[in-house]
Amino acid sequence: MDIERTLAALTLPEKAAMVSGKNFWYTAAVDRLDIPALMMTDGPSGLRKQDPDASAGDITNSVKAITYPAAALSASSWNQSLMRQLGEHLGEEARAEQVSLLLGPGVNLKRSPLGGRNFEYLSEDPLVAGKLGSAYVEGVQSQHVGVSVKHFVANNRENQRFTASSDMSARTLRELYLRTFEIIVKAAYPATIMTSYNRTNGVLNSQNRHLLRDILRDEWGFHGAIMSDWGAVADHAAALTASLDLEMPGKGQASVDEIIRAVQTGELDIGTLNKAVRHLLHVVDKWKPAPTATTYDHQAHHDFARKMADDSIILLKNHQNELPLTPGKTGKIVVVGELAEHPRYQGAGSSHVNPTKVVTPLEALQATGLKADYYPGYQLDESETDDQLANAAMTAAANADHVIIFAGYPAAAESEGFDKHSLMLPENQTDLIGSLAKLNDHTTVVLQNGSAVEMPWIHTVAAVVETYLAGEAVGEATWDILTGAVNPSGHLTETFPVRLTDTPMAPTFAQDPRHELYSEGIFMGYRYYDTHEMHVLYPFGHGLSYTEFEFTNLAVTQNEHGATVTFDVTNTGDRAGQAVPQLYVANHASHAPMPTKELRDFTKVAVDPGETQTVTLKLDRQDFSWWRQGKHRWQADSGDYEIMIGQSSRDIRLQSKLTMDFKNSPAPITDETYLTTIAWNPKLLDLFKKIVITPAGQGDTSLLSATDENGEPTVLQDQMFLNMPLRALIAQGVPANLIENFIRAANIK
Amino acid sequence: MDIERTLAALTLPEKAAMVSGKNFWYTAAVDRLDIPALMMTDGPSGLRKQDPDASAGDITNSVKAITYPAAALSASSWNQSLMRQLGEHLGEEARAEQVSLLLGPGVNLKRSPLGGRNFEYLSEDPLVAGKLGSAYVEGVQSQHVGVSVKHFVANNRENQRFTASSDMSARTLRELYLRTFEIIVKAAYPATIMTSYNRTNGVLNSQNRHLLRDILRDEWGFHGAIMSDWGAVADHAAALTASLDLEMPGKGQASVDEIIRAVQTGELDIGTLNKAVRHLLHVVDKWKPAPTATTYDHQAHHDFARKMADDSIILLKNHQNELPLTPGKTGKIVVVGELAEHPRYQGAGSSHVNPTKVVTPLEALQATGLKADYYPGYQLDESETDDQLANAAMTAAANADHVIIFAGYPAAAESEGFDKHSLMLPENQTDLIGSLAKLNDHTTVVLQNGSAVEMPWIHTVAAVVETYLAGEAVGEATWDILTGAVNPSGHLTETFPVRLTDTPMAPTFAQDPRHELYSEGIFMGYRYYDTHEMHVLYPFGHGLSYTEFEFTNLAVTQNEHGATVTFDVTNTGDRAGQAVPQLYVANHASHAPMPTKELRDFTKVAVDPGETQTVTLKLDRQDFSWWRQGKHRWQADSGDYEIMIGQSSRDIRLQSKLTMDFKNSPAPITDETYLTTIAWNPKLLDLFKKIVITPAGQGDTSLLSATDENGEPTVLQDQMFLNMPLRALIAQGVPANLIENFIRAANIK
Repeated sequence: MDIERTLAALTLPEKAAMVSGKNFWYTAAVDRLDIPALMMTDGPSGLRKQDPDASAGDITNSVKAITYPAAALSASSWNQSLMRQLGEHLGEEARAEQVSLLLGPGVNLKRSPLGGRNFEYLSEDPLVAGKLGSAYVEGVQSQHVGVSVKHFVANNRENQRFTASSDMSARTLRELYLRTFEIIVKAAYPATIMTSYNRTNGVLNSQNRHLLRDILRDEWGFHGAIMSDWGAVADHAAALTASLDLEMPGKGQASVDEIIRAVQTGELDIGTLNKAVRHLLHVVDKWKPAPTATTYDHQAHHDFARKMADDSIILLKNHQNELPLTPGKTGKIVVVGELAEHPRYQGAGSSHVNPTKVVTPLEALQATGLKADYYPGYQLDESETDDQLANAAMTAAANADHVIIFAGYPAAAESEGFDKHSLMLPENQTDLIGSLAKLNDHTTVVLQNGSAVEMPWIHTVAAVVETYLAGEAVGEATWDILTGAVNPSGHLTETFPVRLTDTPMAPTFAQDPRHELYSEGIFMGYRYYDTHEMHVLYPFGHGLSYTEFEFTNLAVTQNEHGATVTFDVTNTGDRAGQAVPQLYVANHASHAPMPTKELRDFTKVAVDPGETQTVTLKLDRQDFSWWRQGKHRWQADSGDYEIMIGQSSRDIRLQSKLTMDFKNSPAPITDETYLTTIAWNPKLLDLFKKIVITPAGQGDTSLLSATDENGEPTVLQDQMFLNMPLRALIAQGVPANLIENFIRAANIK
Repeated sequence: MDIERTLAALTLPEKAAMVSGKNFWYTAAVDRLDIPALMMTDGPSGLRKQDPDASAGDITNSVKAITYPAAALSASSWNQSLMRQLGEHLGEEARAEQVSLLLGPGVNLKRSPLGGRNFEYLSEDPLVAGKLGSAYVEGVQSQHVGVSVKHFVANNRENQRFTASSDMSARTLRELYLRTFEIIVKAAYPATIMTSYNRTNGVLNSQNRHLLRDILRDEWGFHGAIMSDWGAVADHAAALTASLDLEMPGKGQASVDEIIRAVQTGELDIGTLNKAVRHLLHVVDKWKPAPTATTYDHQAHHDFARKMADDSIILLKNHQNELPLTPGKTGKIVVVGELAEHPRYQGAGSSHVNPTKVVTPLEALQATGLKADYYPGYQLDESETDDQLANAAMTAAANADHVIIFAGYPAAAESEGFDKHSLMLPENQTDLIGSLAKLNDHTTVVLQNGSAVEMPWIHTVAAVVETYLAGEAVGEATWDILTGAVNPSGHLTETFPVRLTDTPMAPTFAQDPRHELYSEGIFMGYRYYDTHEMHVLYPFGHGLSYTEFEFTNLAVTQNEHGATVTFDVTNTGDRAGQAVPQLYVANHASHAPMPTKELRDFTKVAVDPGETQTVTLKLDRQDFSWWRQGKHRWQADSGDYEIMIGQSSRDIRLQSKLTMDFKNSPAPITDETYLTTIAWNPKLLDLFKKIVITPAGQGDTSLLSATDENGEPTVLQDQMFLNMPLRALIAQGVPANLIENFIRAANIK
């Protein structure tokens, strides 16, 4: 398509039609100019292609598609290569369904574990979300299907999401919430970005010029199309002016009319409208559906859903090697919990998929060769204990060699559209876990849930396996891990706090209908818990294996802009396994407040028993940088840093110091420069003594004339004095002209 | 003085001279118009009247004066009557020294226990600081001596205090940091207010029009003079324009010249200058020194210093009634610690007093009749253990019946002018306490310190007595408590956290030289620890007695604007004592985030053994109010509250529910009103069904047409749907005109 010629040929009504969705799932076509409609569909973890005639609210009615693990689980793989493959599989399916734009990935950070949408987000850390999100985007787009990276930005609560403003400092926004999007935009060139419902610092995101134009377009150079979440636009002309290109789903003819009117009244500049249309034409041209439909291998894709879950399920606890359960050797097993029979394997809302073939844990159990009896134990949709069900399970558990209880939330508890208000499992399940653990020391809990839960029973059970929402192969993957057919290698991408009240935003989260104050700032997730040295249930990055890894030979090689970090990982156990080495950096160089450590790189490495692999991770200038608000830029400070290699943010295996020199020029001396700064710099101190202390001490200012036995002014040992800026010396009787002379002399290079 | 006539007679140079200090301690006199100079002097807890010729920095050279307990201790009395008497004593002394203005009280809140000036501040809670501060002001001013309430405002750190900006929300500023000053200004009419060094939200306090003019003058109606802290003014004309009246200490003729020049260039309005001079003339007229000097009874004042400490020292821990030590019955006592011999009884900086007569604990011991040996145990000015001193103390302690170790900070560790960086006592003292406690189960720790400390040894010692900085009668008062001559009745006005990292601002406090972000907002002190259900070392309001109090018969009588709360306090022990009942309120009515509870009233009541006293506390509208930022006003919400009577914020003895009706009018319905709001209001819901659901359901919108067995729309049970605002329904296919019709109908009264 000749974009400029097509643009010139479009009439105002046609342009006005193009900047709104034709309906729920299509962009507007212009047949006379051969501009096709693009079809888009929900589904970061599986296609949700709806019948175009169905009601939008009818969220469960869609064509059958593979249901992959929800993002909460697939991110726990920490595996960029697998995430790319996930994207490829989804892209292949989208292409087969003539879908041009897949509405995902969802990459917002998990700020509070109460966030209703956490299950479809990747991490509490922007680097993890950014790298895994980029891999996913590259995967989908390699199949000639575009993505929509959502939800831009700071959409971290669901309650009152249409009006609440995410209020935070520029530093917090830049270092955390924008950072994920910045990584993805710069690394993976997504076709589109979807703006979220919320406001940021008071301005609706879909109409937020600072976010859309200044940052996303001008600073990051994003050339794709910017579309709104469904119903996120309040003022269409204002949104276009702010740099939005496409309002979804559009309000039919009303949307067209309002744009025509806005251009006619001058409220909307025609140049602005042209820009939006130009962006859309580029997207249509690049991502229009292939002329012929393709197909894909359903079984192979189902198998990949299983592999994705295998690589992601997290072994949280494994007391005295309770797991794996080896078929033929393990004795009598009792499986408890309705979730084994009716598993929860996906979330509700726009990511809900109509699965091709769900294999429940109970069904998959047959293939394992394990001998096990099943007892439902509780009713999933109830929170009160059903005594009959519970007693039957308990009686069986008392006489079993091992108990596996499946626990989690019913579907109604976790969804897009509203936040949770507790991290506790339903009471009947909590009670049953406690009872079973008392009756049998070999009790394993298998969790099916969207985000972090409290585990008041943690010290009483032998093992815990976190499967989050594991997709349609939930049963197969769960037993792969429980039997050791697969050695677990998933690691948490979010912290599990001990209690909800431990979360920094506990008293304020989703309370004020108009404002969500991000008062914890950059101290979110492990950045908060680690800096406050808090006890957590399971730390960020945590995940066990059936083998052990040893880390040795850390070497840090500095270069001008960063450093290369190498170390060895040895599998000291007797099974093949995958380690997830995490590189954290502690900043001791900057005056600004800093978390104890921040994740700056990671990888996943497969190591055979007895084998040693050398891992190389990289740090560049950005990894030493923080957002300096007053100067509106990233700043990397010269000084001391600490490099840490860990298996979680709390399990640091190797450490090394590093001193960086970024050739920063020193700040100029002003009348607000503190005497500490002067006292720490030998050259400045000499100058200060000569120009200020000596003359002032000879005058009336007895404060400055006292000297110690070495003839040094005693005032330079006085903390209160050193904590004064130069201008405050005038109130202490120092003549103003001496101060002026010193400032002049000090600033001569 | 005829103020207006005098003002009219003053020349510009005379006016220019009056708005700066003549020198460090005097205002400028104008002899030809009989305007005398006022003398002012430091000293919230004792006069620091310096030789006017001495250097300002020479902080220890002043006339002898009674050294009362530092504010940290005297506030722990929770006794308004005693605080008033403290003010009276200080006022009497100031009058005797011809001092017109006493530069105190210091009423800033203790935000972080690291704050270098906490020892001279009253509390972490604005009500405690406000009520006790008011009593002090009334006491001083009853003696015809004016006060200067300092430091206005948000001066909660010392590091870089001349330039750092205290950045916080309007709500935080109003409900916490301004609130103390508001209470004092409105209740006690202080002669002057002293602005602090820092900026607030970016603007230097001494030049902050919003704080000085809009709030202090216009809103609160403050009619006294506003003066700067010493050297806090950067731009004198800007300060006057912002409503400052007096720059201290002034820069001599340079200050006069700059004001004349500013008026001549138009930078400073002459009307503004006249206003400042008018305020100063009023202050001079009212607080000028009496023509004849008075005297006061030094011994009686020393005795009052002892009484003040007696009523304030806090018994933090008393395992198995380790204390009191009864002379003649107690056996062999070993007293350890150089602080017994060289006590720390006052802070450093502007509150440093040249005491009349210090009675050390070692000296006071003689008068108690207790038999005790003394071992220094450690060197106060060292942090390393002196083995010889420590071993001697340990050997003696091993064979003693009771050990009393005096521990605390050396003077250099806590002062105005810089912040602390740790809450740990010096290592030699910490180690010695641990060693002694291991050797002897009857070890009591007596603390001398300016603010909260960590106590890693807390579970090993039998008793802990917090004396803070107890004034010149430190020795007498300490033994009064230890021997039971006085039954302890002090309670903490600050939380003692377990560890520094438990404080909400731990990672950020005093780090950034330009900004101090109050990110914890209103969740400061117990408001933070209680809301997050954190374990603390000792909670806000905590203090033990040698007797026990029982609380019964809570009755809450509601009135139109608040409530009256009565209850009985019974002394169930065998000693007379004083209880400190604290009234906390929990707000369950408001949508805004709220702390678990907030202190709203308190008193102190003396009760004889077996006696019952009925206590009455009051709540008015303000006690149910929070600062609504968007509306710039206090708001009291109708709804449920909980009344709690406690002996600390964690020791609640009585509880009662209360439903208030403040006749708030409901918010209007707009297109951003959420469906939850509508669903909860039966009238609105009926209207919504009639005007929106039924017609829309009959149209294309299948979303709204489904009904349950009772014919009710199922959509009203869908949390995701209910969490939409009216405008979002349009994107769901509901015709816009139905929404408009509903909004119109819903807003008809």
